[in-house]
Amino acid sequence: MDIRSLSTSHRHPQDAPYVHKVGLPPKQNLFSEFKATVKETLFADDPLRPFKDQPGSKKFILGLQAIFPIFEWGRSYNFTKFRGDLIAGLTIASLCIPQDIGYAKLANLDPQYGLYSSFVPPLIYAFMGSSRDIAIGPVAVVSLLLGTLLQNEIDDPVGNAAEYRRLAFTATFFAGITQVTLGFFRLGFLIDFLSHAAIVGFMSGAAITIALQQLKGFLGIKKFTKKTDVVSVMHSVFASAHHGWNWQTIVIGVSFLSFLLVAKYIGKKNKKFFWVPAIGPLISVILSTFFVYITRADKQGVQIVKHIHEGINPSSVNQIYFRGDYLLKGARIGIVAGMVALTEAIAIGRTFAAMKDYQLDGNKEMVALGTMNVVGSMTSCYVATGSFSRSAVNYMAGCQTAVSNIVMAIVVFFTLQFLTPLFKYTPNAILAAIIISAVIGLIDFDAAYLIWKIDKFDFVACMGAFFGVVFASVEIGLLIAVSISFAKILLQITRPRTAILGNLPRTTVYRNILQYPEAAKVPGVLIVRVDSAIYFSNSNYIKERILRWLMDEDELVNKSGQTEIQFLIVEMSPVTDIDTSGIHAMEELFRSLQKREIQLILANPGPAVIDKLHASGSAQLIGEDKIFLTVADAVASCCPKSMGEV
Amino acid sequence: MDIRSLSTSHRHPQDAPYVHKVGLPPKQNLFSEFKATVKETLFADDPLRPFKDQPGSKKFILGLQAIFPIFEWGRSYNFTKFRGDLIAGLTIASLCIPQDIGYAKLANLDPQYGLYSSFVPPLIYAFMGSSRDIAIGPVAVVSLLLGTLLQNEIDDPVGNAAEYRRLAFTATFFAGITQVTLGFFRLGFLIDFLSHAAIVGFMSGAAITIALQQLKGFLGIKKFTKKTDVVSVMHSVFASAHHGWNWQTIVIGVSFLSFLLVAKYIGKKNKKFFWVPAIGPLISVILSTFFVYITRADKQGVQIVKHIHEGINPSSVNQIYFRGDYLLKGARIGIVAGMVALTEAIAIGRTFAAMKDYQLDGNKEMVALGTMNVVGSMTSCYVATGSFSRSAVNYMAGCQTAVSNIVMAIVVFFTLQFLTPLFKYTPNAILAAIIISAVIGLIDFDAAYLIWKIDKFDFVACMGAFFGVVFASVEIGLLIAVSISFAKILLQITRPRTAILGNLPRTTVYRNILQYPEAAKVPGVLIVRVDSAIYFSNSNYIKERILRWLMDEDELVNKSGQTEIQFLIVEMSPVTDIDTSGIHAMEELFRSLQKREIQLILANPGPAVIDKLHASGSAQLIGEDKIFLTVADAVASCCPKSMGEV
Repeated sequence: MDIRSLSTSHRHPQDAPYVHKVGLPPKQNLFSEFKATVKETLFADDPLRPFKDQPGSKKFILGLQAIFPIFEWGRSYNFTKFRGDLIAGLTIASLCIPQDIGYAKLANLDPQYGLYSSFVPPLIYAFMGSSRDIAIGPVAVVSLLLGTLLQNEIDDPVGNAAEYRRLAFTATFFAGITQVTLGFFRLGFLIDFLSHAAIVGFMSGAAITIALQQLKGFLGIKKFTKKTDVVSVMHSVFASAHHGWNWQTIVIGVSFLSFLLVAKYIGKKNKKFFWVPAIGPLISVILSTFFVYITRADKQGVQIVKHIHEGINPSSVNQIYFRGDYLLKGARIGIVAGMVALTEAIAIGRTFAAMKDYQLDGNKEMVALGTMNVVGSMTSCYVATGSFSRSAVNYMAGCQTAVSNIVMAIVVFFTLQFLTPLFKYTPNAILAAIIISAVIGLIDFDAAYLIWKIDKFDFVACMGAFFGVVFASVEIGLLIAVSISFAKILLQITRPRTAILGNLPRTTVYRNILQYPEAAKVPGVLIVRVDSAIYFSNSNYIKERILRWLMDEDELVNKSGQTEIQFLIVEMSPVTDIDTSGIHAMEELFRSLQKREIQLILANPGPAVIDKLHASGSAQLIGEDKIFLTVADAVASCCPKSMGEV
Repeated sequence: MDIRSLSTSHRHPQDAPYVHKVGLPPKQNLFSEFKATVKETLFADDPLRPFKDQPGSKKFILGLQAIFPIFEWGRSYNFTKFRGDLIAGLTIASLCIPQDIGYAKLANLDPQYGLYSSFVPPLIYAFMGSSRDIAIGPVAVVSLLLGTLLQNEIDDPVGNAAEYRRLAFTATFFAGITQVTLGFFRLGFLIDFLSHAAIVGFMSGAAITIALQQLKGFLGIKKFTKKTDVVSVMHSVFASAHHGWNWQTIVIGVSFLSFLLVAKYIGKKNKKFFWVPAIGPLISVILSTFFVYITRADKQGVQIVKHIHEGINPSSVNQIYFRGDYLLKGARIGIVAGMVALTEAIAIGRTFAAMKDYQLDGNKEMVALGTMNVVGSMTSCYVATGSFSRSAVNYMAGCQTAVSNIVMAIVVFFTLQFLTPLFKYTPNAILAAIIISAVIGLIDFDAAYLIWKIDKFDFVACMGAFFGVVFASVEIGLLIAVSISFAKILLQITRPRTAILGNLPRTTVYRNILQYPEAAKVPGVLIVRVDSAIYFSNSNYIKERILRWLMDEDELVNKSGQTEIQFLIVEMSPVTDIDTSGIHAMEELFRSLQKREIQLILANPGPAVIDKLHASGSAQLIGEDKIFLTVADAVASCCPKSMGEV
């Protein structure tokens, strides 16, 4: 094999001409190639690296620590860290208790199930999770999503409460199974298919939907639509304006919402006062409950929580549907809810890991989150995950490890055991106000504006998800988000960019003439760069696009009377791979050009490409002496005289 | 904005230093950017180019010619061309008549429906199609697919013949609608998602399945399975071995199959004798029919065609289901069958267009094929498309234009009107032999071997589709083919390649050190090339992969005691685009490196990337003086002394 390119244009003046061939990578056997691909796809993070060259007993300990990171960080745990965790844990507990009661309502479940979900899952996570900052529990978006999906199957969550609850546990079980499976089979990269932009839109839309749902409790409306789109909800609200609103409720709601928003504002203005918005909800609950209790405002139509079941989580193993019609339905709902919950938790985990600069193993996180939901589903919990708002509070309160989650769980435990009767007179309007003030933080204008500035297509995805959630339902919004994300990938794949290159004056560098107006085309030579791997999905397009560049160029040449195009150089640096369809397309291109008496020249094919060009015989067809190391070499071979002066 | 890079390393010795900045492309407004994207996605072939700068009347004629290309090529039609078309038309007619009768059986329809489908659709296509070589009519694979899908809905195609037929027309109607829609909305690129490799495997598998199905007619078996997988079929065959086989049938079948295969071999050996395999089937039919007629072998259990309805296509407009349950089922089947039919026709069209070097407009072709199927569904035809075997014969017989299809249609017309009674005594075994000899050509060992040599992943797709069809069903095979094709795309997107670059001795060229073992790393500098656009689907992976390269390099450095890494250069030439997630990943990478006191440097970001780096403020974060035109410039900026000697 003699593909050599005289790199004349690069040679140093005082040296003799120096020869570089286009490198043909060393042949790999099939097995090692396959192994490399699998490793790069599924084990890109090289999880077994620490196990290398270790004795057996050490391997066992390392394995245990890999599954239960608490055994790793626990050994260096000390009192200073505990002080941080204690304060953070108490803070997030005070925030989570009122939120949990509200979120359970979003999922159409009784209030205690929200509290249950803040007890068992955080404990499990503390042992298995590797994030130090995440706060585990029920979250608004997943609660709403779960509620919507479950209600699609069981119309009347109040009438069929037992059945509905059983389906919820089933869905939670499968959400956990989905999460564990993704993590165990190292398919965590699948959640990367929901783009950042789509998540921003989806979250904002969900926040607005959730806030709108709160109008029921906030205005004291009794008859409220079951749909979640803005049109139905507003219709419900205004239809009940005359006789359905309760002014006492509104007064309570508005005053405490104002209080919460002011607290939020104080916390935002001065980071030192982060605890003001954090304990605001608990103070509101205490004050308003006391107020309703002494004024007996519940007799005036102010709706109250009434009853929260006392005691910790009962077992729910027997309640999960392991057969029958609901098994499949539960599994379907669980998969969707599990994926969304994962997306949220991983995004939070990554954000805080980047802030404190520690590594987070996505797949291991998924196993931890999944296990906690599987155990949760057997102890009367519904889907728990990492909460944006509480994690931020946790972080700001100075949490050091997952022990803050344990502290929180203990507080919830005491609440469930002893304090539930105290919530009897808590008005629903307060819960609504707390949820509204919590979800407002999910509406991220800045992010949306940044997306608009950076990438218009991303903005379309963002808005699509947003409007889908607001005007249709969370499912539709999610579907739109995923579809647009996929459409973008497909677009990227089917319509890769190509560029015409020109020579930057006085260099041997060739660059896109649209980006560098000073770059000059070489007379008689057309240089096209293909900016993607050439695969079946785009091979035909690339071939035709190159021919169209040639046609355009021919037209220009005819008009201006320049030298006709005699050489077509395809710069292949960005072409990382080629498949059989791509090889066929290159051969067809070669033949088309041959008929027009234009010489095809390739510049800098990568290892995979040059290998396949040889395997298929295309390199011989095109001519091995027509394959060069650089565009400059290729150009030099076309028109030695015009390059002589450089 | 002052992103300038001193391209010192490229400067010509006798010149002063020359400055090139990293180009920031001219700002486009949103609308023109959007227009460019839509144009490149949907109108990549620039279909309106000939209409530019033409007067109104000329535009009308051009438009007419665009829809009916016959008005374009018809004007230069002459007797020489007609002679070619006449011979080709007669040849393909002699081939299609026996094939049609057999293929109709594959679709579980009466024989005349095969002939109907070779009468109307070719006529329509001749006016609207732009391929000169394709031969239109029913084809084996689509007939089998349609038969299988229809039988999934209607179990007993004989007992419920009328209902089954109506559903077949409905499916044909929607197949046509699908094809027109794809063409009209210029979504033709969607069929590119079935990769060449998958098609090779699918076609070979379908060929074997079809051949196995023929064992029924070939061996004269009466009770035969309705499944198409090899296990069920072989079970059926051997279960009936004792009493179900008919030796007279086998004698007829084997002798004529041998004759057909010998004819095929002669045609292959010497291209001049292409007509031998082409008229072989008709001769077999005539001889065997005559033989059965005089020996009355049908009384000995040799199954015969018996009755073909006389006369041309009756109208079937009223038979299409436009409402009810079958509407949706028909539409679903039609979409699948229409897509597969399209894939076959477009592949054939492109192959022959490349051979004769004319352009084929894929989207226009789809409109033509779709229209012909819509009209076909109203005139008792089932899905027709381009046939591999007949198109090849058409080409070799010297066809010049689509007139050969008209000639064929006229012959079929006479056959339907006057000759159908002659087929009464044609033995089914002959039809089986003809189909077997026709589909054998679809099994493409050479292509499969080439795929194996070029791309192992493609080979997996090919084999997956093949075994799916053979051991399960055509649907499963198709599903596997599409899934593997998609998986490949997703893999490409989520796990792009990265490479470590080194300096080729005595040049300023930096190349992958795995491909060029002579390339030398620069001490203290790690140069990573990212080989893909950075999108949400891979941004996290790319960030972590780069950090892992750094870790690996650090280990090496520690072992060998070289200079520690102080600079990380990311070569961004192949990064054609970046989205918001990608920008975030770059910023996270920058921060991670900052904590390790390593300087991040970017080399040659493309127009879209530099634009977005500026819009998001990342360029300022990283430092505009850390963005260079070439890797060589970037390296020069890190360690001026080490580069001094080049």
